[in-house]
Amino acid sequence: MKVNLMHGAGGEVMGELLSVITKFENNNAGGIGLESLDDGAVIPVGDQKIVFTTDSHVVHPIFFPGGDIGRIAVSGTVNDLAMMGGRPIALSCAMVIQEGFDVADLERIVASMDAALGEVGASIVTGDTKVLERGSLDGIVINTAGIGVANHVVRDSGLLPGDVIISSGTLGDHGLAIMAHREGFDLGEQIRSDVAPLWGMVEKALAAGDIHAMKDPTRGGFANAINEMASKAGVHVEIDEEALPIRTSVRSAAAMLGIDPLEVANEGKTIMGVAADDAEAVLRALRSHKYGKDAAIIGRVTEGSGVVMKTKIGGERFIEAPIGDPVPRVC
Amino acid sequence: MKVNLMHGAGGEVMGELLSVITKFENNNAGGIGLESLDDGAVIPVGDQKIVFTTDSHVVHPIFFPGGDIGRIAVSGTVNDLAMMGGRPIALSCAMVIQEGFDVADLERIVASMDAALGEVGASIVTGDTKVLERGSLDGIVINTAGIGVANHVVRDSGLLPGDVIISSGTLGDHGLAIMAHREGFDLGEQIRSDVAPLWGMVEKALAAGDIHAMKDPTRGGFANAINEMASKAGVHVEIDEEALPIRTSVRSAAAMLGIDPLEVANEGKTIMGVAADDAEAVLRALRSHKYGKDAAIIGRVTEGSGVVMKTKIGGERFIEAPIGDPVPRVC
Ligand SMILES: Nc1ncnc2c1ncn2[C@@H]1O[C@H](COP(=O)(O)OP(=O)(O)OP(=O)(O)O)[C@@H](O)[C@H]1O
Ligand SMILES: Nc1ncnc2c1ncn2[C@@H]1O[C@H](COP(=O)(O)OP(=O)(O)OP(=O)(O)O)[C@@H](O)[C@H]1O
Ligand SMILES: [Mg+2]
Ligand SMILES: [Mg+2]
Ligand SMILES: [Mg+2]
Ligand SMILES: [Mg+2]
Ligand SMILES: [Mg+2]
Ligand SMILES: [Mg+2]
Repeated sequence: MKVNLMHGAGGEVMGELLSVITKFENNNAGGIGLESLDDGAVIPVGDQKIVFTTDSHVVHPIFFPGGDIGRIAVSGTVNDLAMMGGRPIALSCAMVIQEGFDVADLERIVASMDAALGEVGASIVTGDTKVLERGSLDGIVINTAGIGVANHVVRDSGLLPGDVIISSGTLGDHGLAIMAHREGFDLGEQIRSDVAPLWGMVEKALAAGDIHAMKDPTRGGFANAINEMASKAGVHVEIDEEALPIRTSVRSAAAMLGIDPLEVANEGKTIMGVAADDAEAVLRALRSHKYGKDAAIIGRVTEGSGVVMKTKIGGERFIEAPIGDPVPRVC
Repeated sequence: MKVNLMHGAGGEVMGELLSVITKFENNNAGGIGLESLDDGAVIPVGDQKIVFTTDSHVVHPIFFPGGDIGRIAVSGTVNDLAMMGGRPIALSCAMVIQEGFDVADLERIVASMDAALGEVGASIVTGDTKVLERGSLDGIVINTAGIGVANHVVRDSGLLPGDVIISSGTLGDHGLAIMAHREGFDLGEQIRSDVAPLWGMVEKALAAGDIHAMKDPTRGGFANAINEMASKAGVHVEIDEEALPIRTSVRSAAAMLGIDPLEVANEGKTIMGVAADDAEAVLRALRSHKYGKDAAIIGRVTEGSGVVMKTKIGGERFIEAPIGDPVPRVC
């Protein structure tokens, strides 16, 4: 079998490849390990719970409306830590660079990473640099790994019947921004990536109420994240189409491109399952933060399985885990 | 300015690029940070000292005499943790894979990583997978980051006048194995990479005596490592050419290729500065481990600066930090 593009696109096909490349016997360091396929791992060290995660970034182009590869590289890892309840402490930065890459672009990327780090009080403490000969790599790959500390660990598998589903904001922004930019669309109101480091917002939400489950809807978008959350918890999720926050510009671009905005990546959002009694408090906390202004209650959890959307016109349809994110090199 | 191959080759030119891409204001999480440019960072968490490091691996070809990219990916990070005195606990594994890559090769790589992890009791606990379209990447890039725990942190800058310099084994093996293999040399006795995870050996050495400084001679080889150790400590190092352990096959291949074996990477060695009184005990500890059988005392530290080699014929010559490792895509 050969690796194909869908193997790297989040979603169902990627799951098949992961079953091969996560076949480690040495897969757990005493806490939450690879077997959980959560946003990160948890490792007990002394009396502390260390959260650990990594993402490589290959987004193309490297500068795009609303962000750049540096901001994604920091935000992606900060957010996976945050999804586990981890305060981001230290990140690594490993760059693989094509021969001929502009050093001025590297400087811009580093400055952008630094700004994102500053927002959440984390630091780059270690790194690596490799250069590949012309023709062996198109551009740059930036990997970050991150270490966080969690007081209270949150899983992506923790949904309980009765929970309320909250989205911290509008869906589909990043994927559509990348795609519209590549296609050269001008939609009047420009679509911008939502890429942002979310720890500050998540910290407020964690303090406001009982969050049972969290996941960031990155590759494969909301459709992938909510399906993974539902199936890991063994619950049914009901989503209200009317309540889904999606920007008009994102909707238009999605329609023009024939893409479902629920199946493309965000880089600055979280999907939460919250105890019903705490939902309003958590919503207020999210909305009090600049990255959570559009937070909304979008559904609820019941017993059963699968994810169903109540449509605006009163019907119902399944939201399925997509085969993969339709936007290549989205992050 | 454009990035060139020497910017990724360890050595002096890479240092220039690093001064640009390590310009983070957020560069330290409370312990040893990026400013030290050591093999890893140290982060205090609770009452523990966490060591954190990362390396991306782009070695070509991915399977070579003595090892493969998976074994390097685990050993590289385990060894940078070990160089700081850190027991490796948990690693991340982020793969960027070219479309069309053989899944059977991925399985071999994963099995090889797993075996190397098993040798030192570490685990892969988190990861990431991206696939690039044909033409955008030649092969596979594997990044690992690692978390270790140190009882006693060792720096690469800790050499003191009076210390003895020990090499844990033969030098130049990995770089020459890659190069000879690429060139299709048959040297009778085959040259094999020394790639190995060193924590077990280093742990014994740490228990045997007072190790003031450690560094793994990877890109840029021994010449680069010893110069960095000397200059960071502000000391002079004197090396005995006669005492340097170099395999005959490595010497021959180096001569044929016009490469200095002291300037190419090892992936299973450490260079140590040890208190003179403890040198014999540390040497015994190293030799008692399968990866340290050829350990040798190779020099000593005095006041001053620079690294000088006493040659076999009684002369002296400087060992300089190389411009860069002469073997491209060596690790
Ligand atoms: N090469 C790999 N080796 C080990 N584990 C992996 C690898 N690739 C992915 N994983 C694991 O598979 C799970 C899914 O990975 P994925 O990258 O989709 O998660 P994510 O980082 O939350 O999403 P995204 O990368 O889109 O931001 C995670 O638990 C991750 O640790
Ligand atoms: N892109 C980067 N961002 C931040 N720090 C970096 C980056 N590249 C390298 N560094 C830092 O520069 C120093 C030298 O890196 P280098 O990769 O040469 O060390 P090493 O891993 O010990 O050697 P090798 O990679 O050959 O095994 C290290 O302290 C590393 O953390
Ligand atoms: Mg995630
Ligand atoms: Mg992620
Ligand atoms: Mg390195
Ligand atoms: Mg090192
Ligand atoms: Mg290294
Ligand atoms: Mg990922």
